[in-house]
Amino acid sequence: MKAELSGLLRIGVAGLGTVGGGVCKILEHNAALIECRTGRQLVVTAVSARDKTKKRGIDLSSVTWVDSPLELAGRDDVDVVVEAIGGDGDPALSLVRESLKNGKAVVTANKALLARHGEKLAKLSYETGAQLYYESSVAGGIPIIKMIREGLAANRISGLYGIMNGTCNYILTRMERTGEAFGDVLKDAQKLGYAEADPALDIGGGDSGHKLVLLSSLAFGCWPDFESLSVDGIERLSADDLAMASEFGARIKLIAQARMLEDGHVLQMVSPCLVPRSSPLAHVDDVLNGIFVQGDFVGPSFVEGRGAGEGPTASAMVADLMDYACGVRHPVFGLKPDDMRTTDFAGRDDWAGAFYLRLVVRDQAGVLADVSPVLRDCGISIESLIQRGRSEGQPVAIVIMTHETTGKAMREACEKIGKLPVVLETPLTMPVLKI
Amino acid sequence: MKAELSGLLRIGVAGLGTVGGGVCKILEHNAALIECRTGRQLVVTAVSARDKTKKRGIDLSSVTWVDSPLELAGRDDVDVVVEAIGGDGDPALSLVRESLKNGKAVVTANKALLARHGEKLAKLSYETGAQLYYESSVAGGIPIIKMIREGLAANRISGLYGIMNGTCNYILTRMERTGEAFGDVLKDAQKLGYAEADPALDIGGGDSGHKLVLLSSLAFGCWPDFESLSVDGIERLSADDLAMASEFGARIKLIAQARMLEDGHVLQMVSPCLVPRSSPLAHVDDVLNGIFVQGDFVGPSFVEGRGAGEGPTASAMVADLMDYACGVRHPVFGLKPDDMRTTDFAGRDDWAGAFYLRLVVRDQAGVLADVSPVLRDCGISIESLIQRGRSEGQPVAIVIMTHETTGKAMREACEKIGKLPVVLETPLTMPVLKI
Repeated sequence: MKAELSGLLRIGVAGLGTVGGGVCKILEHNAALIECRTGRQLVVTAVSARDKTKKRGIDLSSVTWVDSPLELAGRDDVDVVVEAIGGDGDPALSLVRESLKNGKAVVTANKALLARHGEKLAKLSYETGAQLYYESSVAGGIPIIKMIREGLAANRISGLYGIMNGTCNYILTRMERTGEAFGDVLKDAQKLGYAEADPALDIGGGDSGHKLVLLSSLAFGCWPDFESLSVDGIERLSADDLAMASEFGARIKLIAQARMLEDGHVLQMVSPCLVPRSSPLAHVDDVLNGIFVQGDFVGPSFVEGRGAGEGPTASAMVADLMDYACGVRHPVFGLKPDDMRTTDFAGRDDWAGAFYLRLVVRDQAGVLADVSPVLRDCGISIESLIQRGRSEGQPVAIVIMTHETTGKAMREACEKIGKLPVVLETPLTMPVLKI
Repeated sequence: MKAELSGLLRIGVAGLGTVGGGVCKILEHNAALIECRTGRQLVVTAVSARDKTKKRGIDLSSVTWVDSPLELAGRDDVDVVVEAIGGDGDPALSLVRESLKNGKAVVTANKALLARHGEKLAKLSYETGAQLYYESSVAGGIPIIKMIREGLAANRISGLYGIMNGTCNYILTRMERTGEAFGDVLKDAQKLGYAEADPALDIGGGDSGHKLVLLSSLAFGCWPDFESLSVDGIERLSADDLAMASEFGARIKLIAQARMLEDGHVLQMVSPCLVPRSSPLAHVDDVLNGIFVQGDFVGPSFVEGRGAGEGPTASAMVADLMDYACGVRHPVFGLKPDDMRTTDFAGRDDWAGAFYLRLVVRDQAGVLADVSPVLRDCGISIESLIQRGRSEGQPVAIVIMTHETTGKAMREACEKIGKLPVVLETPLTMPVLKI
């Protein structure tokens, strides 16, 4: 056994909120178990947090408090830094960078940081030999990063897709169950602690996007590129959309997906999708996350579990600490930086499949006579159509299910349809998930 | 990087059937990818198989053929041995033992071998430092062993349960869909290659049991003890049982489960169970496997994928080879032998919950007057009762759903009920799975 794989492992924790506090709690609560499983004692030696006096239900009496998280990167009594500050800039970024520069391993749950700075940090990690672990950044209750990087490592991955944001899934599940409006459910989710005070990153799809580009990098060996990603959120969905989807034998979920196209491009997109009821993903409800990975030899594998929250996130961070303690070493995105490839990503324009199209129109004769030719001219054919809630003079919703087409054709058609005088709102489109 | 973590990794494959051949196929087909991900070339240098002339669709031209698999354990050009012979005795046992003795790592899919000889082999592996990997032995398409040993390692596991045998799941799924009898579906499954010529190990629950004791060892740190396990198979189930279960809002699945009881005993059992439709397990159909693991911080995690077959099994074996190539080292059951504990296992008698009870009785007045007092005297109360298919003079089935009781009470009641003159068959009982 190498020297560094025995004895104490000394941990510095930056940030003692839900996540950092949760890590300390597990290390304390399951200390004996963790020592048994790793053969080492994992001990928090230094912490940094804004409020020293706050009650956290953990014993920090023998721990050194430092004023700035950055100090953790330079301390001799810290082998590995837990970054639980959050945010895609400083101080989190500096802390991770300086720690790696100083040869200290880093464990982080910070998907935003890695989605934006993953390439730089992975290269730095490779140069200095300091490991960077981030299992907790995607679906804490599901060891999906380990699964892709190690469990399915013998496979060429052709695609991965799933529900990666618990807040959106909670909102959609409840809108479907109760028929409540998006805004009302969001407010209640904020009260219940399922949604942030500023919910934009969750409901706009950005958080799912951060997670997707990390998984995509691991699966396809391409650097995370958040900027190139097509992202649609759930803000425009109504309870009626959820009810309509049901009539088509589907449920609406916010799906993040990455697929290897035949031309070698990697398609990445986040959008609400119709998920056929026959897929296990259609039954992943409330705050749960669920992800499919498709490998060339293994076939499809599906995992479901809690996505976020203190327990699952901290569980995944401690698993990373234990991996480090046991000497598990992998390049950040599974490949050496030189072997990572630059990819031309594809987005929603390149998505091929059926679409759900919802139009809100003036209730008058001849609407379909206006809309149909536009679809036809864009090469889109109608599979079925539902019109509902007709009341004299009121706007009326028309829902169209298309045959297989492309995102580009849909976009072009919707640009034209949106300009028709009878159409009152920007058309809403959702792909039907291929399972 | 340690010397042993660079350069060629030389592999000896014993057995070139579906599994061993599959391993060679992946190593050949995804060679570039595997080298990229591990930084090493994984090369088959020697093989042993009965038939040298058989066409296998793989290039073995530069490989040394040995006559006896045991030779692989002693060859200087083999670093790691893939045991793909099968069976819980020799030559597989000798091959694994001699390889470990000679300091060679072993990768095996042999659950029967490990369920019976796991303790001896784990101790030997620890003494010699030669690693033993067996991810492929349980649900090849699901990296469940890695998930329990590493992904959820920070958690105290309270229970795990699932569908671990694809043959049984295929048979039950089809019986439910078509109403065909067990024997007919089994015959067809044999023709389709979903069931072995000798199906006893699958349909009798033994194969699920082998897998269960391995997962149980990893989760609870107790040596695998197949002999102590309660095992019931699916042989006695009828299409009527599956239809009845449906009326109770459940489906019947062969469930292997291990749970930590409050008294510290580990309950292990394999039996057909009623699985409420609200559980994802109820929707794991055909040859798929699905497993729940419950940890104290992570909550419930669920995984679903292909259980067996060339691709998934070989994918898991190659992942093990890649782990070895990358220096991932863990004791066989997650803990050093000295830290493993001897456990008093509990079985079906100790299971607490509701039961499904099917009686086949003579169609005459007063049957319930005979049966009810027996249940009452055993402390079992009836939640609901269905009687069907009544035709004068014919045997008739009565299905009872009980309130919460114990396996012991059910066993005692059934022993008495089975002796009643009106009861024509041994009563059939199934637990209702707690989710």
